[in-house]
Amino acid sequence: MTTSAFRTIDWRGDALVLLDQRVLPVDETYLTCGDWRAVADAIKQMVVRGAPAIGITAAYGVVLAAREAGADAGPEALAPAFEGLAATRPTAVNLFWALDRMKARAAGGRGAALLAALEDEARRIHDEDRAMCRAMGDHGAALLPDGACVLTHCNTGALATGGDGTALAVVRSGFRQGRVRLVYADETRPFLQGSRLTAWELNKDDIPVRVITDNMAGHLMQRGQVDAVIVGTDRVAANGDVTNKIGTYAVAVLCHHHGIPFYVAGPTSTIDLATPTGADVPIEQRPAREVTHVGDRRLVPEGVAVENPAFDVTPAALVTAIITERGVARPPFEASLARHVAEANGGAA
Amino acid sequence: MTTSAFRTIDWRGDALVLLDQRVLPVDETYLTCGDWRAVADAIKQMVVRGAPAIGITAAYGVVLAAREAGADAGPEALAPAFEGLAATRPTAVNLFWALDRMKARAAGGRGAALLAALEDEARRIHDEDRAMCRAMGDHGAALLPDGACVLTHCNTGALATGGDGTALAVVRSGFRQGRVRLVYADETRPFLQGSRLTAWELNKDDIPVRVITDNMAGHLMQRGQVDAVIVGTDRVAANGDVTNKIGTYAVAVLCHHHGIPFYVAGPTSTIDLATPTGADVPIEQRPAREVTHVGDRRLVPEGVAVENPAFDVTPAALVTAIITERGVARPPFEASLARHVAEANGGAA
Repeated sequence: MTTSAFRTIDWRGDALVLLDQRVLPVDETYLTCGDWRAVADAIKQMVVRGAPAIGITAAYGVVLAAREAGADAGPEALAPAFEGLAATRPTAVNLFWALDRMKARAAGGRGAALLAALEDEARRIHDEDRAMCRAMGDHGAALLPDGACVLTHCNTGALATGGDGTALAVVRSGFRQGRVRLVYADETRPFLQGSRLTAWELNKDDIPVRVITDNMAGHLMQRGQVDAVIVGTDRVAANGDVTNKIGTYAVAVLCHHHGIPFYVAGPTSTIDLATPTGADVPIEQRPAREVTHVGDRRLVPEGVAVENPAFDVTPAALVTAIITERGVARPPFEASLARHVAEANGGAA
Repeated sequence: MTTSAFRTIDWRGDALVLLDQRVLPVDETYLTCGDWRAVADAIKQMVVRGAPAIGITAAYGVVLAAREAGADAGPEALAPAFEGLAATRPTAVNLFWALDRMKARAAGGRGAALLAALEDEARRIHDEDRAMCRAMGDHGAALLPDGACVLTHCNTGALATGGDGTALAVVRSGFRQGRVRLVYADETRPFLQGSRLTAWELNKDDIPVRVITDNMAGHLMQRGQVDAVIVGTDRVAANGDVTNKIGTYAVAVLCHHHGIPFYVAGPTSTIDLATPTGADVPIEQRPAREVTHVGDRRLVPEGVAVENPAFDVTPAALVTAIITERGVARPPFEASLARHVAEANGGAA
């Protein structure tokens, strides 16, 4: 039950306060969003990122929209907010999942009752996420050998969720149990979530972390320095294909080549049974500037084009297991993932 | 026979002028080295980099040492320069190869004759490198299909050699012949030789180039967007193991997984028959700051450790062919590399 020394998403009743992750690890600055447009903008600008955190943030955004809509407003007044929040990031399924929950809860409500219901639902989404993080952490840690060196990609921790994280919840549980000795954090170009965020939060929690550039992972594996890889996910297709931060696929291929287990941690809300395979997931293209610049420093000559896909798809065949709050799903994933989702829906009913 | 619009290494008779590659792609600045210590420092600080360019630069450094030693000096006066220049970068075998040639040429000379002999030898090393680049380019281009999209790592071009480059000489020849349609340049963290240098020089020569972060290569290969990979090398062991910029190994594994040819281009001076395998090559560890910062901007939180191996080793089994100025060496590499080296030594005798 780690409690981090920072709050990623802090609901104040009349405003949402977000830790501005764009300026980490140098500055710890908080941004106050007083309306849903500011929330949508914060998601789009990556003030907050990470699939579960985006879902929670969007849910509170809907609450702010209901406050703004006023004392007599019904669900129809929230349409622009639902639309605007859904348009912020196309890949993360939690965003749509959270908005769907809020929409369902809003149905039939009006005025103060509507507002209260939505606030309750947003808090529930947040609380459930905390509990799911803890559960994923415990299920996943059991997979690791004692004293393991674990490699992770991107940021999937307390900065990306409402709780301990997804992959980093496994790391945190594993560290408490003596199963994790050292974490290698891929810096995760172009947005540098690994060096800026994962390193920052693990270091705050006194978990030994070492940053590498993305292209060093293969070299470390070749030298036997990596015992397991654990990553998060933005969307898991019904067949077990995993969409996650660009670079994840290459790490999975490297694991396969070296016989290293490749684990994925994500809540069942990340599993999208309506998406048959990873080929059906839209891959967001992000602005060129993330690749051409770091801060104000230009890295790529003017006039040279770049690619910037934000995600890639790891085929299920390269995935050793998928850890959810319901346990450890193994291949064949069609069956095991469907079971986890059914249990989660049953449990929530 | 491209002539680039810039000079990487420009010998002026009494000084060596180097294009300062640390400030590319934003500024095109030249650094004048008036003595061998300045040359050694420039190599160490990576004003100039790339195995062949380092060898040529060090050779001119010895000429400057001979000028400084004065009218009656013999080879013994050059000992500190030979030692100091050899101590700049531990991995690139061309450095030692060039210094050995200069040492052999210095033997028995004195005063003006010594100086003239050394200047002649340095110019020869430079001229031979130009010719070798052209030959590698032509041998390598013949391996590529028409209209290929080629991926490369690090910088191996006119900025890294005395001529067209090694891997980029193949790209240049291939582009002239219509075999290369587009070059994907890995940005090559941490020093960003791909985004800063490869993109800069290909763009100057109007060869279509697109920069990707290192972790995008797998995604592009998965989508069928890469027809061949071609990289340079800092040292090839007798068995064909290839030491090259960190990240090369991961690209080779990805090629293997996707059935994409993985080519290595390097002059025979890069082949070190005295090194049996890649396991015997020392891997230079470079300063942490290259990983923790880009320019003055801190990416990694203070107090967090990083790794910074400058090179990795790609086992011969992952290498499709090695292109030298003598032709295309195929597996088994023990025999084909030894033949290339013997021919080169015979040809130079």
